[in-house]
Amino acid sequence: MKARVHVMLKNGVLDPQGEAVRHALGAMGFDGVKGVRQGKVIELDLDAGVTEADVEAMCEKLLANTVIESYSVEMI
Amino acid sequence: MKARVHVMLKNGVLDPQGEAVRHALGAMGFDGVKGVRQGKVIELDLDAGVTEADVEAMCEKLLANTVIESYSVEMI
Repeated sequence: MKARVHVMLKNGVLDPQGEAVRHALGAMGFDGVKGVRQGKVIELDLDAGVTEADVEAMCEKLLANTVIESYSVEMI
Repeated sequence: MKARVHVMLKNGVLDPQGEAVRHALGAMGFDGVKGVRQGKVIELDLDAGVTEADVEAMCEKLLANTVIESYSVEMI
């Protein structure tokens, strides 16, 4: 079983990495990009007994900094 | 319109970041995690005229290092 976790900066938190990407795309001639947010995706290869609640506990304790980041868990 | 781009290291490419996460989860008592791969997710806020092909061009030229990374584009 696998889980995919998305970790993104919360809205309102400055994202300098995303801003740098947006600027670089503009400089390379890609018009029409209004905004860029960059986050992390973490793919976990899990034993059968691990539940979505376990993965959420992993997010709370290690994978995301919940002060500034939000996360979503998707079992695949 | 928005696009979400996933950029992951290709299979076979060593992922020290993912390996560090796997090790840390084990040390924190989360059993049952067999493997971890960490990648990037980039959310693009686009003008209406931008197509999926444009986003793929952005990936090829800037967002992914196609020597070691694979990407997937999802229009949302």
